[in-house]
Amino acid sequence: MASRVPKQIGVIGASSCPPEIYELAREVGRDIARRGYILICGGLGGVMEAACRGAKEEGGLTVGIIPMAHKEGANPYVDVVIATDMGHARNVIIVHSSDGLVAVAGEEGTLSEIAIALKAGKPVVGLKSWDLGGRVPQASSPREAVERLVGAWG
Amino acid sequence: MASRVPKQIGVIGASSCPPEIYELAREVGRDIARRGYILICGGLGGVMEAACRGAKEEGGLTVGIIPMAHKEGANPYVDVVIATDMGHARNVIIVHSSDGLVAVAGEEGTLSEIAIALKAGKPVVGLKSWDLGGRVPQASSPREAVERLVGAWG
Amino acid sequence: MASRVPKQIGVIGASSCPPEIYELAREVGRDIARRGYILICGGLGGVMEAACRGAKEEGGLTVGIIPMAHKEGANPYVDVVIATDMGHARNVIIVHSSDGLVAVAGEEGTLSEIAIALKAGKPVVGLKSWDLGGRVPQASSPREAVERLVGAWG
Amino acid sequence: MASRVPKQIGVIGASSCPPEIYELAREVGRDIARRGYILICGGLGGVMEAACRGAKEEGGLTVGIIPMAHKEGANPYVDVVIATDMGHARNVIIVHSSDGLVAVAGEEGTLSEIAIALKAGKPVVGLKSWDLGGRVPQASSPREAVERLVGAWG
Repeated sequence: MASRVPKQIGVIGASSCPPEIYELAREVGRDIARRGYILICGGLGGVMEAACRGAKEEGGLTVGIIPMAHKEGANPYVDVVIATDMGHARNVIIVHSSDGLVAVAGEEGTLSEIAIALKAGKPVVGLKSWDLGGRVPQASSPREAVERLVGAWG
Repeated sequence: MASRVPKQIGVIGASSCPPEIYELAREVGRDIARRGYILICGGLGGVMEAACRGAKEEGGLTVGIIPMAHKEGANPYVDVVIATDMGHARNVIIVHSSDGLVAVAGEEGTLSEIAIALKAGKPVVGLKSWDLGGRVPQASSPREAVERLVGAWG
Repeated sequence: MASRVPKQIGVIGASSCPPEIYELAREVGRDIARRGYILICGGLGGVMEAACRGAKEEGGLTVGIIPMAHKEGANPYVDVVIATDMGHARNVIIVHSSDGLVAVAGEEGTLSEIAIALKAGKPVVGLKSWDLGGRVPQASSPREAVERLVGAWG
Repeated sequence: MASRVPKQIGVIGASSCPPEIYELAREVGRDIARRGYILICGGLGGVMEAACRGAKEEGGLTVGIIPMAHKEGANPYVDVVIATDMGHARNVIIVHSSDGLVAVAGEEGTLSEIAIALKAGKPVVGLKSWDLGGRVPQASSPREAVERLVGAWG
């Protein structure tokens, strides 16, 4: 029924990050918006903020699925705030709500999302992220990361 | 931080309903969209579908927070699909993600959402819905229901 | 497979309550333990603490499914602590984990649990609790409440 | 308040596994029970069943936090069934409910639990499990795995 819904791409990564990673995530957000996809993320700072910011620069739609109970916890570039009050369990919702995911660097929280994505059979591509012995293909640029997801959808 | 985000209004009700209730919910959706608010709902049929359909007729943005793990479970008028794989627990997320809620008729599932909204201190208005001994103010029209929420925000 | 597992009975109610309600809940806990059932509850104070306390007085087993992330949030009469970090969504888990429920008085949180129980088709009996126009049968004593659940299992 | 509650140890691993891994998990369960700890697990087959089985052989108490909505989904060695209806999100509850975890081999689901444990600062020890570049210390025997957790509690 929902086939005409635009694809939703998740961007996952840490809530604080160095400038180089921030710029990578921002460019991923820009690329997602330029292609007309909806950006899904965890709605906080760092990589999540950067991706939302990039998407808004290109007129995209951004969704933040946050761990808190109150909408005010989201970063200022989030259009739609999903307030879960579920802490880390919201990571699972991010995965289910994404047709594919780009992991930008990231620490343990990101690893939990990658693991759930692999378990659920969702395509996931990394940018300087967890490789897991080759289980997570790494892209050399934001554009390549998004293109690999598009390719995975066939 | 997220203060410039438009208000998000939840519309809650049963996944199947008689035509009279369907039209009420559709008009609630239209009114929410005309005022520029984002529509939050459970993403399934009945009242949820009607509200989304009405909102889309007025060019609004619709969000469906569904109980299943796969986006395909949403009704065709949902723009953003949040796939939770959490069954009834997704009701709690609907409440937290809404700045106020309109309950259109509804059965036990709707009652659980009203109860959580009362517990969380969220404004909730009914249309032919659970009254709970006066705890849930009832509106006489879709427009009045939405206006009461706007009034509650102050 | 799990058929030899003892029945699990949920006791739901507010986290603070007057002494009369506390004693009612304590007697419910005692009765559950004497019959060899496992007590499920939300693990906090008030009715939840009273039920656990009563169950421990009779050598029963108590389980507290708490909203916080840390086990330390449970009342001192809980044997097994399930720390969910899911706020009100833990109410749904309490219902699914119970073969039947006794509602002792209670406010909005309890109402949300009753609603989910009705939705899920779980037997639920009240003691001075929400009646919902006759949908929730009320018992006149703790013993009668538990006996009605046993009767519902057939 | 809950300080006199026995420690709860989580055993995580795949729902099907080769006999060698099954026996390892069973011995972990035996060791947990002999020390008087409560066993927490995901309640399904494979490593989870083996650990519960071992714990029951030594008279321990076993808790299965299952992804389904119905208690019947648990393996026959589970004493207390927590039915979440939350799919993979139940993994997060397993971590929060454990004072420490032993990962026995395991695939993506186990990896998600290890990641959440690391994020939450919970001690986690592996047996032929994910090493993550040294982040997860590996034990050479079931006894050593449990002893390392005890040591981590100080």
